[in-house]
Amino acid sequence: METQQCIAQRRSVRRFTDQDISNEQLKVIMEAARIAPSWANTQCWEFIIVRDQAIKEKLAETMPESNPARKATINAPVVIVACGKLGKSGFYKDQAATSKGDNWYLYDVGLATQNISLAAHDLGLGSVILGLFDADAAGKVLNLPDSVKVVTLMPLGVPAKESKAPPRKPLCEFVFKDSYEKAWVTGDEENLCFIEE
Amino acid sequence: METQQCIAQRRSVRRFTDQDISNEQLKVIMEAARIAPSWANTQCWEFIIVRDQAIKEKLAETMPESNPARKATINAPVVIVACGKLGKSGFYKDQAATSKGDNWYLYDVGLATQNISLAAHDLGLGSVILGLFDADAAGKVLNLPDSVKVVTLMPLGVPAKESKAPPRKPLCEFVFKDSYEKAWVTGDEENLCFIEE
Repeated sequence: METQQCIAQRRSVRRFTDQDISNEQLKVIMEAARIAPSWANTQCWEFIIVRDQAIKEKLAETMPESNPARKATINAPVVIVACGKLGKSGFYKDQAATSKGDNWYLYDVGLATQNISLAAHDLGLGSVILGLFDADAAGKVLNLPDSVKVVTLMPLGVPAKESKAPPRKPLCEFVFKDSYEKAWVTGDEENLCFIEE
Repeated sequence: METQQCIAQRRSVRRFTDQDISNEQLKVIMEAARIAPSWANTQCWEFIIVRDQAIKEKLAETMPESNPARKATINAPVVIVACGKLGKSGFYKDQAATSKGDNWYLYDVGLATQNISLAAHDLGLGSVILGLFDADAAGKVLNLPDSVKVVTLMPLGVPAKESKAPPRKPLCEFVFKDSYEKAWVTGDEENLCFIEE
């Protein structure tokens, strides 16, 4: 699939068919994560591919009971758990190098998981990125050491139906020109106008 | 360009030709950021498109003098500044909902900037993601309010030369099966073997 089409048509998918996902498909997806950029090429990400039903259920239990993501976690054939190693991203000579301290792993895992979302969509698969759960409890389920933190859970499968795109802010609301007080464009998608000096 | 090819062939580009980038190209790139997923669709990202040479130079001054990224920031025709609004991502009913507190904006800006990297590469443009600079000083240069934090700077332009891919860890080093102590695969790219129970 063309890149722009893939970026535009990717959806968050929470309902899956019973169809399984092959290891070869997962390999393509994990390769996409592998070649993502990262802080000084530290590649602080680690991933756990969960197919075991009992483990999926334990992961679902780390979410609020009302969260519809529970069902997606239990019903997906695969849940990819995206983790980050502490003390790598954002560091220079073993010291945290910026005011963001040891939180840069969140950014780098974000880069890698977006590649996962897109590679999955390109293969005709659907995924959703989940962040609202008890990450320490999930880490215990997966036997993570203290130095590795769970960031997001990504249920993955064949979409059970087409999903609509949720609304997005128009560019004029979040893109600026040279400085925060200057708009870059006016109007919406259909009637976009670039602002010249 | 095909999605898998785009993901695999994107490089971090630090040297650019003198060629400018059009607003139409930037629009394609910013649309890619716009439709990225985010925590509860909060879209906490904001972007500043910097073409003004004096502002680019002031941004470069927020980096360590030895950092080669300074030159990329000064010489690129455009620098995209990726920012995150505090108090949105990771929140539920106005309260931080996880142990990661108000750091989820880093993850969401990561998702959006990976779309930017890929959309740029798809257009034949090159970019690099920079994190090692004084984000508060950069925020002052751009007149950001306290509630908006600079995350990364992305110099963007036409690549001056082809870049090689830096080495990446093999899948067997960072992908696990069901639990952290179980390998998913053995061997490297040329000789990958999936581990069955």
